[in-house]
Amino acid sequence: MVQQKSLDRVFHALADPTRRAMLKRLVAGERNIGELARPFRMSFAAASKHVRVLERAGLVRRRIEGRSHLCRIEAKPLAAANRWLRFYEAYWSERFDALDALFAEQDNKGKAPG
Amino acid sequence: MVQQKSLDRVFHALADPTRRAMLKRLVAGERNIGELARPFRMSFAAASKHVRVLERAGLVRRRIEGRSHLCRIEAKPLAAANRWLRFYEAYWSERFDALDALFAEQDNKGKAPG
Repeated sequence: MVQQKSLDRVFHALADPTRRAMLKRLVAGERNIGELARPFRMSFAAASKHVRVLERAGLVRRRIEGRSHLCRIEAKPLAAANRWLRFYEAYWSERFDALDALFAEQDNKGKAPG
Repeated sequence: MVQQKSLDRVFHALADPTRRAMLKRLVAGERNIGELARPFRMSFAAASKHVRVLERAGLVRRRIEGRSHLCRIEAKPLAAANRWLRFYEAYWSERFDALDALFAEQDNKGKAPG
């Protein structure tokens, strides 16, 4: 159950292009909220809201230095999401076509008279 | 832009434990909405809503046979999500510890007087 909740939060955090772009920027190193907001021309409040979603998913850690909130990436929760996805790897690669052919065959059978 | 929208939809679809479980069930083969609803003791309408989110993400294809809506998994959009995630693999595996050590060092420098 705990892992389900964690996956919910990670996938939810990744379901937004701004949050994905923020994570990508953080790969280069720590950034404060203002720096994260700038390329999106969004308010500090809006950027801060996105950072909170990333924090809740465990993807960002924040430390306060004076008046600056410095954010860093925490990639570990992405590993669980990756594990979840890789279960389906067989279905989007080799076995996918075979599966598709099987379904098509079933479709045809369904349409055949008698 | 198109790919961003597609990733938004895929990650959003995966951000719910019921939808993830539905996808897992569909690996065994086609299921109608009623069959997908049953293990969750949810209404047909609620299950149908989840299926629509999966459809919009391109993860489920639906065909109508009489009064039955048969759903099948379409795993291909998961490949793009997987590619996105794997960019970060270095950060949750080997390089993660090195990165963490680097940040810790920076923290200490920040705290040092002068």
